[in-house]
Amino acid sequence: MTIAKTAQAFVLNPSGLFAFEERSIPILQSDRDVIVQVIATGLCGSDVHYWQHGRIGPHIVQDPIILGHESTGVVVECGSSVEGLTIGDRVALEPGIACNTCSRCRGGRYNLCQDMRFAATPPYDGTLSTYYRVPAECCYKLPPHVSLRDGTLIEPLSVAVHSCQLAGAMQEKSVVIFGAGPVGLLCCAVARAFGASTVVAVDVVQARLSSAQKYGATHTYQMSTNSTDKNAADLLATARLETGADIILDATGAEPCLNCGILALAPGGTFIQVGLGKPNLSIPVGQICDKEVVFKGSFRYGPGDFQLAIGLLNSRRIILDGLITHEFSFSQAKEAFENVAGRTGIKSVIFGPSVDENLARASLT
Amino acid sequence: MTIAKTAQAFVLNPSGLFAFEERSIPILQSDRDVIVQVIATGLCGSDVHYWQHGRIGPHIVQDPIILGHESTGVVVECGSSVEGLTIGDRVALEPGIACNTCSRCRGGRYNLCQDMRFAATPPYDGTLSTYYRVPAECCYKLPPHVSLRDGTLIEPLSVAVHSCQLAGAMQEKSVVIFGAGPVGLLCCAVARAFGASTVVAVDVVQARLSSAQKYGATHTYQMSTNSTDKNAADLLATARLETGADIILDATGAEPCLNCGILALAPGGTFIQVGLGKPNLSIPVGQICDKEVVFKGSFRYGPGDFQLAIGLLNSRRIILDGLITHEFSFSQAKEAFENVAGRTGIKSVIFGPSVDENLARASLT
Amino acid sequence: MTIAKTAQAFVLNPSGLFAFEERSIPILQSDRDVIVQVIATGLCGSDVHYWQHGRIGPHIVQDPIILGHESTGVVVECGSSVEGLTIGDRVALEPGIACNTCSRCRGGRYNLCQDMRFAATPPYDGTLSTYYRVPAECCYKLPPHVSLRDGTLIEPLSVAVHSCQLAGAMQEKSVVIFGAGPVGLLCCAVARAFGASTVVAVDVVQARLSSAQKYGATHTYQMSTNSTDKNAADLLATARLETGADIILDATGAEPCLNCGILALAPGGTFIQVGLGKPNLSIPVGQICDKEVVFKGSFRYGPGDFQLAIGLLNSRRIILDGLITHEFSFSQAKEAFENVAGRTGIKSVIFGPSVDENLARASLT
Amino acid sequence: MTIAKTAQAFVLNPSGLFAFEERSIPILQSDRDVIVQVIATGLCGSDVHYWQHGRIGPHIVQDPIILGHESTGVVVECGSSVEGLTIGDRVALEPGIACNTCSRCRGGRYNLCQDMRFAATPPYDGTLSTYYRVPAECCYKLPPHVSLRDGTLIEPLSVAVHSCQLAGAMQEKSVVIFGAGPVGLLCCAVARAFGASTVVAVDVVQARLSSAQKYGATHTYQMSTNSTDKNAADLLATARLETGADIILDATGAEPCLNCGILALAPGGTFIQVGLGKPNLSIPVGQICDKEVVFKGSFRYGPGDFQLAIGLLNSRRIILDGLITHEFSFSQAKEAFENVAGRTGIKSVIFGPSVDENLARASLT
Repeated sequence: MTIAKTAQAFVLNPSGLFAFEERSIPILQSDRDVIVQVIATGLCGSDVHYWQHGRIGPHIVQDPIILGHESTGVVVECGSSVEGLTIGDRVALEPGIACNTCSRCRGGRYNLCQDMRFAATPPYDGTLSTYYRVPAECCYKLPPHVSLRDGTLIEPLSVAVHSCQLAGAMQEKSVVIFGAGPVGLLCCAVARAFGASTVVAVDVVQARLSSAQKYGATHTYQMSTNSTDKNAADLLATARLETGADIILDATGAEPCLNCGILALAPGGTFIQVGLGKPNLSIPVGQICDKEVVFKGSFRYGPGDFQLAIGLLNSRRIILDGLITHEFSFSQAKEAFENVAGRTGIKSVIFGPSVDENLARASLT
Repeated sequence: MTIAKTAQAFVLNPSGLFAFEERSIPILQSDRDVIVQVIATGLCGSDVHYWQHGRIGPHIVQDPIILGHESTGVVVECGSSVEGLTIGDRVALEPGIACNTCSRCRGGRYNLCQDMRFAATPPYDGTLSTYYRVPAECCYKLPPHVSLRDGTLIEPLSVAVHSCQLAGAMQEKSVVIFGAGPVGLLCCAVARAFGASTVVAVDVVQARLSSAQKYGATHTYQMSTNSTDKNAADLLATARLETGADIILDATGAEPCLNCGILALAPGGTFIQVGLGKPNLSIPVGQICDKEVVFKGSFRYGPGDFQLAIGLLNSRRIILDGLITHEFSFSQAKEAFENVAGRTGIKSVIFGPSVDENLARASLT
Repeated sequence: MTIAKTAQAFVLNPSGLFAFEERSIPILQSDRDVIVQVIATGLCGSDVHYWQHGRIGPHIVQDPIILGHESTGVVVECGSSVEGLTIGDRVALEPGIACNTCSRCRGGRYNLCQDMRFAATPPYDGTLSTYYRVPAECCYKLPPHVSLRDGTLIEPLSVAVHSCQLAGAMQEKSVVIFGAGPVGLLCCAVARAFGASTVVAVDVVQARLSSAQKYGATHTYQMSTNSTDKNAADLLATARLETGADIILDATGAEPCLNCGILALAPGGTFIQVGLGKPNLSIPVGQICDKEVVFKGSFRYGPGDFQLAIGLLNSRRIILDGLITHEFSFSQAKEAFENVAGRTGIKSVIFGPSVDENLARASLT
Repeated sequence: MTIAKTAQAFVLNPSGLFAFEERSIPILQSDRDVIVQVIATGLCGSDVHYWQHGRIGPHIVQDPIILGHESTGVVVECGSSVEGLTIGDRVALEPGIACNTCSRCRGGRYNLCQDMRFAATPPYDGTLSTYYRVPAECCYKLPPHVSLRDGTLIEPLSVAVHSCQLAGAMQEKSVVIFGAGPVGLLCCAVARAFGASTVVAVDVVQARLSSAQKYGATHTYQMSTNSTDKNAADLLATARLETGADIILDATGAEPCLNCGILALAPGGTFIQVGLGKPNLSIPVGQICDKEVVFKGSFRYGPGDFQLAIGLLNSRRIILDGLITHEFSFSQAKEAFENVAGRTGIKSVIFGPSVDENLARASLT
C-alpha cells in the first residue's frame, strides 16, 4: 500500500465556514503509533454542533479544526513496536488518546483522563482527512462480515455499550430508552443483547420509532403532550410494567424525558444519562431519594467497550444493517453536515478522500 | 418488671392539635414480637413537618397519629420464639417493620419494601407512648456505655451509616457534607470513622459549623451569597481539594447545595442525596455526564445499618456526646416540637411517660 | 379442586430401605402458607447419596425421611394472606424455607440462613408425597409453555443461574464448564443466555458431551488421561483460547477438573465451584495467587434466582427439551433411584401419587 | 545534586554467589523517566529465595541479577515531561513497570500486565545499586514525617493495602491474619485502619505475636499442634467469634493455616491469599461451597495502592515504628541476606552505596 504524498482535509474555520485544504501527511511520533487511511466517518451531533454553535461547553473552536471522530480505516504504516496489526488491516478507530499514566488511566477510567486528546474536540483535529495517526491500542480490527462503512457505527455502539454496562446486569430486566436516534437505537440493541426481557423505545417522533423494533425494542412509546405523570403511566402500561421499569437510559438530554424516566423507575432502579446532559435541568430529586434511585452520567467509553462492541458484532447479537441511511463522498462533506442538521434519516457517513466506495461498502465474507 | 395497665400517648390530630390520650397497652401479635417500654425519643424534622403541614408527599395525616420514631426502650415482654433478648434489655428500636417476604426484602433491600409499616408515617403510629410493639429483629441492644437518652441517636446515626455506605469506600478520600444538623454532623462522624482523610462540613449558618470539628470534620465552609461556581471554588480551596472532592453527601435538600456539591465533585465522584430531596430541583446534569458522576438517593437504612451504627459506638469510633442539646419530659412534648420548629440546638429528646430521667441519662459503665 | 383425605409418601428409612407410607395431609400453619399437590419431582444426586450413604456431611438420616426437592405442583389451598396465587395455579417449588428474619436473610443471602429448612435434608421431609406445604414466596408460577414435568428442571436451572450470577458479567466472555450432567448442561445454557461468546463443555465421558451443543456449548472437550497441564492446554486449544478462559464453572467436584480449570484460567479469571465440593482437594493455590483468581463456592440459590430462571424460560433463551430422559410413576420411585444410581440418561422424574401423567407432560400453550 | 560517575551494584550470580560490581549509571530512556539515587532497600523473602533456590516458579536466575525492590530514594534527574517531581524529592519506588497500554493495564489491573518489568524478578534488575531508573508514575513522595529508611516499608504496606482492599469493606468486621511477619503485621495494621473491630494475629511462633498488638491486632493466637478443627475453634474462642470470622488473610502460604482459616470463616466470608501460595495445597473445598466462601488470590498491588498506603501514613492511621529491626550498610549486603535467611527480627534494610545513614533515618518534621 502506497501512501499519498499529501492529505486532503475538510476543515471548519472559527468563522463557521468549511474549507477543503491540503495538509502534510502525519508521521509516526512513537514506535507504538499507527497511520491509518481513513475510509469512512460517521457524523455525530457534536460535529454538527461545533459547526452551528462554534463550541460545546468549555470547548471552543478558536482555530481551524478538522471534525469527525466515528471512523474506520486501513492501516498504512505501523511503528516498530506495534504488535497484532499489519499494513492492510481494516480497523475501527477509538478517537480518544489517553495519557495512560495518570491515576485515572491506571485506575481503569481512562475516559476521565484530564489529558485526553479526543478527535474533533478543540484543539484536537478529527478524522475527516486522508490519514490519521493513533496509538496501536486505539485500533480495533473489524469483523470480516462488517464493512468499513458500517464499521463507523462501532464508535456510537461503544457509547451504547458503555452506558448499558454502567446500568449493571440487564438479564430479564425491563429497560426504557428515551431517544430513537442512532445512540438510542444502539442502546436498544445492546440492552436486548444483554438479556433485557423488555426494551421500550421512546421518542416524540413516531417515525423514528418505526425502526426501533428492528434494533431490539420489544415495545415503543410516543411521548405525548400530556403531563409527565400521564406519560410515565402510559409508557409503563404500554409495556405492562405496572410496578415500574428497572433501568432507564436517556439519550435525549431533554427535561421532559428525564422527568418521565425518573417517574417511571421502579424503587431501586437505575437511570443512565447517556452523555447528552444539558447544563442544568429540573429533575424530581425527591423521587430519586424515595426510590433510592442510582442516577449515573455516562461519558464516552472506557476499558473494554470497543472490544465488547466488536464482540457483539462477531457473535451477531447486534445487527447494524439499515442504520446508515445516507452516504456522502468526501467532496460532499458540507452536504452531509447540512443533512444531519436537517435531522433526516438515522446516520450519515462521509467517505474518505479518494476512497473506492464500493469497497468501503463490502464485507469480507 | 411490671407492665402498667394503660399507656399514655401523645397524639397529633388531623386538625394539627396535639392531645395526650390513654391507649390500651399493645399485646404480642406473633411469637416473634417484643413489647418495649419507650424511654426516650428524639425528634426528627419529619415529625415536626407532619405537625406543621399535615403531610409529607403522599403520606397524609387523615386520622389521629402518634409521632416519634427515634427511640430507645426497655424490653418488658418477649414472644415465645424470641432469642437473644430478655426482659430488662436496653434497646434501640428500628422503626420500620418490613414484610420480610417480598422480593425486595428477600433481596436485601428491605428499606424499599412496599408493605413497610414505618413508625410515625401515616397511617402507622409512632413511639411517643408508654409502650411500643416491634418484631425482635427491630430491637438492638445498646452498648453499655451509651445511655438510653443518647441511644435515641442510633436511628439518625443509621441514616448516616446508610448514606456513607452507599458512597462506597471512603479510605483516604475527601468527603464534603452539606448541612450541619444532626444527620449532617453524624455523616461527618461516620465519614471520618470510615477513613476519609478530609471531611468538610458546609452550612449557611456559622453557628452550626462550630461543633462540626468535634464530630469529625477536618474543615468547615460557610456557604456565602456568592455564585455557585464561586462557592464551589472557595469550598475546595478551603480544604485544598483543587482537583475536586471524591464524595459529596447532601443533608439539606437545598438547590444551591446540590448545585455547589455537583460542581465541587472530582471527575468520577459520587454524590449522595441523604433522604431529604425536594420534589423537583434544578441540577447541573451536564456536569453529571461530563464527570461521569454517580448520583444516588439514600432512603432510611437497610440491612446491617443499625448493627454497624452500634459497632461504631462500641469501638468508640463515633462519640455522641453533646449532640442532644435539649431534653423534655413527656408532659412537655408539645414544647419539644416547638423547640425543634424554632431550630434551636442540635437534637431534642422527649422522655417516655413515667420515665426516671436520671436513669435514662446514665450509662451502665 | 378437592384434596384427598390422606397422602402417600415415599419414605427412606435410616436402614437404607424405602417404603411407601400413608401420611396425614399437611395443613396451613400460617396465613401465608400454601398447600401444593406435588405433580412431578426430579431426582438429584443428593437424593441418591442419602439413600446410598445415609448422610451428606453433617446431615445424617437418623429418622425416616421423605426425599425429593426438585418439584412442581398445583396449588390446592392458600392461606388468607396469600396474594398472587390461586387454587389451580401450576407452580415450581423453591425447596428451602428460610427464616426471613436473621441478618443473612435480611441482608439478601437467605441461602446462608442457619435456620433454613431445606426439603429432603435431614431432618426435613422432601416432596415425594401427595402434598407439600410451603410459604407463598416459595411458589413460582410456571410459564404456560412449560409442562409440570419439565418445570421440575427449574430447581437445577436456578442452581445454574446462581452460579453464573456469582461469576459476574459474561457478555462476550469465554466460559468453561466441567461436568455435562444436568447442572453442568444447564450452566452451559445459562452462560450462553448470559452472552458468553465461547462456552466449552468438558467431561470425561464423550457420550455426555454429545448433547452439550444443544444446550448452548460452542465447543466440547473430553478430559484425557494426560497430565493436567496437557489437558488444560488441549482444552484451551480446542476453543482457541490461548490466553486462557475468563470464567470456569466446575459442576463435578473432581480434583482433576478443579486443577485443570484453575490452570486454564486467564489472569484475573473467576472460578465457580458449583456446590459439589469434596471435603478436601489439592488445588494449585500458587496459580490462584499469581493470576489473582477469584474462586467462589456456590451454594444452592438465593434472591431472584428462581425468578430469573423462569424469566429465561419465558423469553425462550433457555430450552429444556430433552433434558428429562426418564419418567417414573410414583409406584416406581425405587426404580427411579436405581436408574439415577446407574447414571443412565440426563434427568429422571417421578410423578406424584395419582397424577395424570399426560397432563403433567402437557404445556398450556 | 551531582550524579556519581559510576554506580555500585550488589549482584547475584546464577551460581548463587554475590558480588559487588561497578555498573554504568542509568540514563533517561523516555521524557517521562526519572533517575533516583537509591537510599534504602528492605529485603523481602523473595530476594532471599532467589539467592537460596535460584528461582521462584517460572522465574529463573539465568544471568547475573541485581536483587532488591522495596526501596526509597532521592530524585536526581527528571525527564522533560515529568510533572510533580523535582530533583531532591524523597520518594518511595513502585518496583513494577507496567506497559500501560494492554487491555489489563487500561482496564485498571496493571498488576496482571503480561509485559510487566518487575524489579528483581529475572531478567529485570532490582534496586540494590546506586541509581535506579523508573517512569514518573512509579515515584511517590514520602510523607515528611517518614524517613527514607522507614519509607522502604511502603512497598510491603502496599501489598497489605491491596490484600485488604480485595477483602471488601472491613468496617466493624472480624479479620483474622495468619502470619506475623512484616506483611502479616502490616495487614493487621491496615485491617485496623480500615475499621475492623476484631483483628486476630495468628502465628506458630509466640515471639512473632508479641508485637502484633502494637500494629493493630486486638487478639493473638498461637497455632498449636492440635487438629485443624481444634485450632479453628480455639482461635475463634480466643476472639469471641463463635459464629466465625468475616475475613481471613493468609500471609503464610502454609497448608495448616489455609485449612484453619477456611474452617474459621463465617458463612459468606472472604479469604484472601496474600501472594505466597505454594504451588499445590489441599484445602477444604467442601467448606468453600457450603459457606459460599469467596477465596481470592492477591498479587502485588495495583492502581491506587501506593497512594492509599501513603495516605494511611499521612493520616497517622498506620505507624511503622519498630518494624525495621536490622540495618546494614551496602557493603554488608550479604550479611543482610544471611540475617533474613535466619529469620531474626521483622524487617532488615540495606542502605544504598555512599548513603549518609543518619540522614536516611531522619524524618523531615
